[in-house]
Amino acid sequence: MAKENQFVEQIADINADFPKWYTDVVLKTKLVDYGPVKGTMVIRPYGYAIWENIQNEMNARFKQRGVENAYFPLLIPMSYFAKEAEHVEGFAPEVAVVTVAGGETLAEPLAIRPTSETIIGTMMSKWVQSYRDLPLKVNQWCNVMRWEKTTRPFLRTSEFLWQEGHAAYTNAEEAESETLAMLNLYKDFMEDCLAIPVLTGRKTEKEKFAGAVATYTMEAMMKDGKSLQSGTSHYFGQNFAKAFDIQYLDNDGALKTAYTTSWGVSTRLIGAIIMTHGDERGLLLPPVVAPVQCVIVPIAARKGGVVERCEELKAELEKAGIRVAFDNTDNSPGWKFNEWEMKGVPLRIELGPRDIEAGKMLCARRDTLEKQELSLENAAESVQELLKTIQKDMLEAARVRRDGRIIYADDMDGILAGVESGNFVKAGWCGCRECEDKIKEVTGATARVRAEGESKETCAVCGKEADGVIVFARAY
Amino acid sequence: MAKENQFVEQIADINADFPKWYTDVVLKTKLVDYGPVKGTMVIRPYGYAIWENIQNEMNARFKQRGVENAYFPLLIPMSYFAKEAEHVEGFAPEVAVVTVAGGETLAEPLAIRPTSETIIGTMMSKWVQSYRDLPLKVNQWCNVMRWEKTTRPFLRTSEFLWQEGHAAYTNAEEAESETLAMLNLYKDFMEDCLAIPVLTGRKTEKEKFAGAVATYTMEAMMKDGKSLQSGTSHYFGQNFAKAFDIQYLDNDGALKTAYTTSWGVSTRLIGAIIMTHGDERGLLLPPVVAPVQCVIVPIAARKGGVVERCEELKAELEKAGIRVAFDNTDNSPGWKFNEWEMKGVPLRIELGPRDIEAGKMLCARRDTLEKQELSLENAAESVQELLKTIQKDMLEAARVRRDGRIIYADDMDGILAGVESGNFVKAGWCGCRECEDKIKEVTGATARVRAEGESKETCAVCGKEADGVIVFARAY
Repeated sequence: MAKENQFVEQIADINADFPKWYTDVVLKTKLVDYGPVKGTMVIRPYGYAIWENIQNEMNARFKQRGVENAYFPLLIPMSYFAKEAEHVEGFAPEVAVVTVAGGETLAEPLAIRPTSETIIGTMMSKWVQSYRDLPLKVNQWCNVMRWEKTTRPFLRTSEFLWQEGHAAYTNAEEAESETLAMLNLYKDFMEDCLAIPVLTGRKTEKEKFAGAVATYTMEAMMKDGKSLQSGTSHYFGQNFAKAFDIQYLDNDGALKTAYTTSWGVSTRLIGAIIMTHGDERGLLLPPVVAPVQCVIVPIAARKGGVVERCEELKAELEKAGIRVAFDNTDNSPGWKFNEWEMKGVPLRIELGPRDIEAGKMLCARRDTLEKQELSLENAAESVQELLKTIQKDMLEAARVRRDGRIIYADDMDGILAGVESGNFVKAGWCGCRECEDKIKEVTGATARVRAEGESKETCAVCGKEADGVIVFARAY
Repeated sequence: MAKENQFVEQIADINADFPKWYTDVVLKTKLVDYGPVKGTMVIRPYGYAIWENIQNEMNARFKQRGVENAYFPLLIPMSYFAKEAEHVEGFAPEVAVVTVAGGETLAEPLAIRPTSETIIGTMMSKWVQSYRDLPLKVNQWCNVMRWEKTTRPFLRTSEFLWQEGHAAYTNAEEAESETLAMLNLYKDFMEDCLAIPVLTGRKTEKEKFAGAVATYTMEAMMKDGKSLQSGTSHYFGQNFAKAFDIQYLDNDGALKTAYTTSWGVSTRLIGAIIMTHGDERGLLLPPVVAPVQCVIVPIAARKGGVVERCEELKAELEKAGIRVAFDNTDNSPGWKFNEWEMKGVPLRIELGPRDIEAGKMLCARRDTLEKQELSLENAAESVQELLKTIQKDMLEAARVRRDGRIIYADDMDGILAGVESGNFVKAGWCGCRECEDKIKEVTGATARVRAEGESKETCAVCGKEADGVIVFARAY
């Protein structure tokens, strides 16, 4: 018994110490390791495979919206940041700077990109000449660097991987509607691929991206009740287009300034998956992005024909495009069950001599822990169906968990009590920075996102007329 | 006529000014643009799509050899380089160094990776404990930085994209044979995917990777007769394993040191494609990696049913997995022909009212410029066949061109004459550095690769007994 539980015991209790549980899970399932430089991470194959699956799903969606992938340089002249006043203020304090290269001190120091609006704006200014060149939509998958004091694998690291999409349009309406279209693309992706429900909407002025007219965000609730900003879509108006001279000759012969946007998600999403679905047994990965969707564990593997039948089944499932592992190691079935459960593989198939004789396989779901017997005939089809069901049920379970923890408050005490018991708290807000700051000071919660379409009469802090409803939460 | 040739005229004459032709082609086909920092490039969507196709093909091959993708940090402490003496000597002069981050001067300067043996060695030392952990094979797709004085898009830029595979083994035999297996994987990839024949073999001591016991290379002949080192596979013996403490407990209970290897190819491959296949009309892309494999150009597009039939054909080809463009712009067919020829699309299909009536399509090959009528029935199948033929014929044509320009020489005059007329020159070599240096000094050619299995009696320089035959060439 001790042996069978050895993995479970290695992970801290999720209910007793959530941060320790998180660290245990990411390290012990080999998603990630600490890099030698403080605040850096090594993404190990099991973690990187999730990222590759995210990339594939996202690329397919980008393509449908006419976005093309490209690659822009890592190093950006420091002077570029200064061209947009808010932008430099927001990013200058956390850039890493190259001052020496090829044995010589550089005339101008170069920043490692914390984000690429400035360099992409510079290139767009060259590429955009006529209205025919617009809209222009590019995306890059790359590493970025933001020097952070407190770091945690996937959630906040000095270097991380992300995609950053950048687009330029002829007019404000199209740019704004595309900003929202990208937010919706992200929302659909979160739900369909990661089984994570998100609240979407606009950020407050305080929380928006440095240089944006408006930032739209998607916020996901982690199992400890904290919010994880999971992706953002920014509308820049003409801020960057003016700073970087993105001008075009319109069909009326006039020279006009473009409107730009950008949008991004990062390896943070892997953190979101872990903290949305994980449990006391470890990881639980949504089938769409799980590196291994299904593991076959032989029962009484030494009995004639078992290994062969498992391999046959594996080949059959693989042929149907299912990502399968066959665990034919010497460990006991119980040990294997625990290991693959910890690794979050959504479906386990147990196959022993009696199953084979009966033409059945025993399927154990990682999400509900339910077991069901399925026929070995048309195995690929039924496994695919089951994976779809798991994906759908995981989203639904996460939604129910989250919805039960969104509450309303009318005053500071209510916000504090709500946040302390791990809720998202919706409260009226007058719109002023002082009240927003005060909530953070008293409760540790920040304004995550505007609850669009909701209204309250008064601000929970000052009692003045409310300008809208805000979702407050502690956040990663 | 002038209009129809406008693209052709924009490109320098390949025979008169090869370097200018190269620059014209990469810029005008929008593969790449210059970045704002000297020596950097922006890889534009048309160029990046080639890189993505290369990645997909390569990943499939890596997977078959048990290599898993991962991601390691960009920044490496400078002290790491010093752990392997030859390595630091080779790379220190060209690193870019971060000295300031988060507003503070760093206690230890950090190098932007020029290659990742040191940081991956550090992680392997942690991950490898037992013989059961070996072999360990990881690969990363990432950006690297080497501060170069003279740069050219794809061929030599301060930042470039590449893959670097790293592996550790229990014994020298396996490590050496895997080093060669990777070289062969690369060779097959070059031939099957890029239609580029390569000479493979070992580098001289002078030309090997800093820190390697042996470097194996593949060398491709560009149309100007120069050689392009297109990929390398290194055997490190225990050099890095000792420097980074990669030790394991063997099954005999003894603590032993591992043997390591690394191998890599980069965005240079795009330069190799351009200079192997391009011609006076511009690019010529091998079908396997071409972003657009086939373009449909409507003839008399205003005639009823033409556009519809083209779109139908496009859908049919796409369904079969062919990457198709349908050029339904207002430009004349002649203008379109030139544009798509310049962009190197391997196959053009012309479809007009008469073709449709006859149930035919006119297929024009970019490589041979031959046209042939094919039935519209089973179009996808015959287009796929034709693309395969083009791929095969491109390799064969490149091989014939190259083989006709590999000659032998017995003395310095012969090497000089051979190199000056754009050949690879095979000559006997005694094995000493002085003779190798002298050849470079007199002819500008370097020792590209050992011609394995060939022998000569004497060294072409000093006349002493030859240690083997070397392929000398000027190189990128």
